[in-house]
Amino acid sequence: MLNPQLNKHGELQHLLSIEGLPKSIVNHILDTASSFVGVSDREVKKVPLMRGKSVFNLFFENSTRTRTTFEIASKRLSADVINLNISASSASKGESLLDTIDNLSAMHADMFVVRHSQSGAPYLIAKHLNDHKQHHVHVVNAGDGRHAHPTQGLLDMYTIRHYKKDFTKLTVAIVGDILHSRVARSDIHALTTLGVPEVRAIGPHTLLPGGLEQMGVRTFTNMDEGLKGVDVIIMLRLQNERMNGALLPSAQEYFKNYGLTPERLALAKPDAIVMHPGPMNRGVEIDSAVADGPQAVILPQVTFGIAVRMAVMSILAGAKE
Amino acid sequence: MLNPQLNKHGELQHLLSIEGLPKSIVNHILDTASSFVGVSDREVKKVPLMRGKSVFNLFFENSTRTRTTFEIASKRLSADVINLNISASSASKGESLLDTIDNLSAMHADMFVVRHSQSGAPYLIAKHLNDHKQHHVHVVNAGDGRHAHPTQGLLDMYTIRHYKKDFTKLTVAIVGDILHSRVARSDIHALTTLGVPEVRAIGPHTLLPGGLEQMGVRTFTNMDEGLKGVDVIIMLRLQNERMNGALLPSAQEYFKNYGLTPERLALAKPDAIVMHPGPMNRGVEIDSAVADGPQAVILPQVTFGIAVRMAVMSILAGAKE
Amino acid sequence: MLNPQLNKHGELQHLLSIEGLPKSIVNHILDTASSFVGVSDREVKKVPLMRGKSVFNLFFENSTRTRTTFEIASKRLSADVINLNISASSASKGESLLDTIDNLSAMHADMFVVRHSQSGAPYLIAKHLNDHKQHHVHVVNAGDGRHAHPTQGLLDMYTIRHYKKDFTKLTVAIVGDILHSRVARSDIHALTTLGVPEVRAIGPHTLLPGGLEQMGVRTFTNMDEGLKGVDVIIMLRLQNERMNGALLPSAQEYFKNYGLTPERLALAKPDAIVMHPGPMNRGVEIDSAVADGPQAVILPQVTFGIAVRMAVMSILAGAKE
Repeated sequence: MLNPQLNKHGELQHLLSIEGLPKSIVNHILDTASSFVGVSDREVKKVPLMRGKSVFNLFFENSTRTRTTFEIASKRLSADVINLNISASSASKGESLLDTIDNLSAMHADMFVVRHSQSGAPYLIAKHLNDHKQHHVHVVNAGDGRHAHPTQGLLDMYTIRHYKKDFTKLTVAIVGDILHSRVARSDIHALTTLGVPEVRAIGPHTLLPGGLEQMGVRTFTNMDEGLKGVDVIIMLRLQNERMNGALLPSAQEYFKNYGLTPERLALAKPDAIVMHPGPMNRGVEIDSAVADGPQAVILPQVTFGIAVRMAVMSILAGAKE
Repeated sequence: MLNPQLNKHGELQHLLSIEGLPKSIVNHILDTASSFVGVSDREVKKVPLMRGKSVFNLFFENSTRTRTTFEIASKRLSADVINLNISASSASKGESLLDTIDNLSAMHADMFVVRHSQSGAPYLIAKHLNDHKQHHVHVVNAGDGRHAHPTQGLLDMYTIRHYKKDFTKLTVAIVGDILHSRVARSDIHALTTLGVPEVRAIGPHTLLPGGLEQMGVRTFTNMDEGLKGVDVIIMLRLQNERMNGALLPSAQEYFKNYGLTPERLALAKPDAIVMHPGPMNRGVEIDSAVADGPQAVILPQVTFGIAVRMAVMSILAGAKE
Repeated sequence: MLNPQLNKHGELQHLLSIEGLPKSIVNHILDTASSFVGVSDREVKKVPLMRGKSVFNLFFENSTRTRTTFEIASKRLSADVINLNISASSASKGESLLDTIDNLSAMHADMFVVRHSQSGAPYLIAKHLNDHKQHHVHVVNAGDGRHAHPTQGLLDMYTIRHYKKDFTKLTVAIVGDILHSRVARSDIHALTTLGVPEVRAIGPHTLLPGGLEQMGVRTFTNMDEGLKGVDVIIMLRLQNERMNGALLPSAQEYFKNYGLTPERLALAKPDAIVMHPGPMNRGVEIDSAVADGPQAVILPQVTFGIAVRMAVMSILAGAKE
């Protein structure tokens, strides 16, 4: 099987990356998510779809925020969740990643939600499970290195679809540290898959990776030019560690050139929406007046994120073996 | 609304402090708790009152002990519990407290149990939620700085009521480091609200805060005098960090003057009860003979504490929006 | 009561050690476990045997791996699980071990799963509970110092019974650092109890404790001799901290003398099985060709381990008071 994400029936077996995911599966996830948006509003926020299933949050890189979204999604699906902070345990005892996976599979795990600082780690795990015919175990990539963060990409698509309905007429700008961002990479693949005609990447030269043009992305180093007439603005978080490094002069300087202020936002379409994966650096990549303003859909992104993760997990859990 | 703890129907919306809580609400909590005392004794220690609700334990200050009591109370109410040790996550990424709160609210949180080293943090959160009309989210203060620890105060009242029935004829002594104690502050407000005619504070000058007399509290620096004829003795934990600091000479010296020994206990009424919020420093503020003696009700306090927390949480969850 | 593990009805009250456990109880645990092996294979991997019970994982020594197995077993029995990493909490506040236990018992705990670096800690806790007539609380030893790891011993017995059926004709070799191994100690007691006629201990002189011969164990310092004709090989993990210490020259040297290679395995019976408690040090005590080979039953051990822990916990929870 060439695409390790799909099983022999063409169903989603693992969610590793939006790259290579058929448009029909992306739409199936978004449609399923929309049925879950209501669940979190109910008095009893639970459905029994994963009752008795064991979900392992394998966080080789610490991220309370992302771990929490998966933990809530799992519990609202009635799954049992076990949180493993791996850096502090087996890794320090010298056990290999794949031995850990084999062990947890032998405990009849149903799903691994994997966060890892190294690009490709979830692929390695999924391939190992496929090779050993452990078809009852599913992998969700919760962020690997600079590579991919597919559930973030999907929740971004859900948000855009919710506010803009039709992908085929949109201009979407992604602003900031594209070079180091797995969110940007996942968003670009998703937007392209869903037929967005114009995707723009805006940032300083040092933070724009090569190869964007080949992916069909227009690049801008001047933010004012890049924002002109866009329907959707996706701001990226500027990692603290970049701020005073070789790639950037300072946070103040960055804000001056790439911070989203009300004045800059006025260059986009009047009904443009502003997104951010969080956590925000107010005053660095985004002005509080925008973050808390009427065009920001940053908190709805969080709400939709739970529904999208419930959709992904329940679809994986329902795949045929 | 002047009192941020009450909603427009006069119901408990948040539990932030016993100060300002109407006596009727305090009594309602104690009455509700008494119906939960039996639940923990049953074969199946669960009631479905909060099934499908999401409770977030937001501990900005580490306290396994208090976190555990809330986690048990939540699970016995059938809620889903998510533990967040915040110091280790978003805080280190520079996200503001209120952005974190907005995010978790957007995940459809139902309740935040907040522990924070800064006085007022739970107030700030509750006010923010009220201001943004997030009326579906409730805040429980699980201890903020030196300010308040209302569930400890309430469980202390439950314990006193259990053993002494009538508050209006009691003399209650609180002994130790009153100055730094949120427990003492919450107990004093609760005792006053419930009509206890005589509340005494006993401790060295350096650990007795100003303003006690105005709160109707009699102060004593001589423990023998202070204990004479009391019905209830509430011992406070002496924080390790105080022991060899500027405020106190030494643990030995402290025990000589303010340690509760069997001899000192004999000065109180013969049926006086001895309470302690735990964890105890045996041989510092309390002698083991007293801690393990027939007048100590320290373990019943723990048992009642679960019921009181179940009462608070279920009352909050049942408030109208 | 002489044996603190049994209650006055002769039922299992605590599981502290396999030493002193009647053969009938060991067999009852293994038989019960076999009924649970199927549960983890089902669509809904849960039985309601411990619904509403509160299980506390008290890990005074960090072990994500063992904690995870107990957490899964508890959740599959529908119990509520509370994880306490004690070193980081009360212990640092100077509360005594037994005060912590009294507190958690007062919260109506049903079970303590205890891991402690000091031999005897679970005994101390069980004795304290028995002395204070806290008969509703059960203790499971999840590994104490060098002393015992009874659930590992029991899952090893389950595995041997699964593959070899009859204990009374077997030769079993335990290989490695017998001196520091609570697994070895538990296995030796279990094998003896179940009537295995020949138990061998293989390792360097410095890692073979005195007294093995009195326990009926044959000792070998030459691995080739020790493996001749055995039915079962139990490899032990070589702790990292031993590797370059006074007791051993180096990991390479150790592998040369005591590593299990395909050549050495060929000295055992052709149908011999290879076990390991994990996590494995590949290339130190075991060659990958053996670890991943057809005679290894290391992953089935993990699977059976969940069922055995479910059996132990459900038997304890069902004991009469």
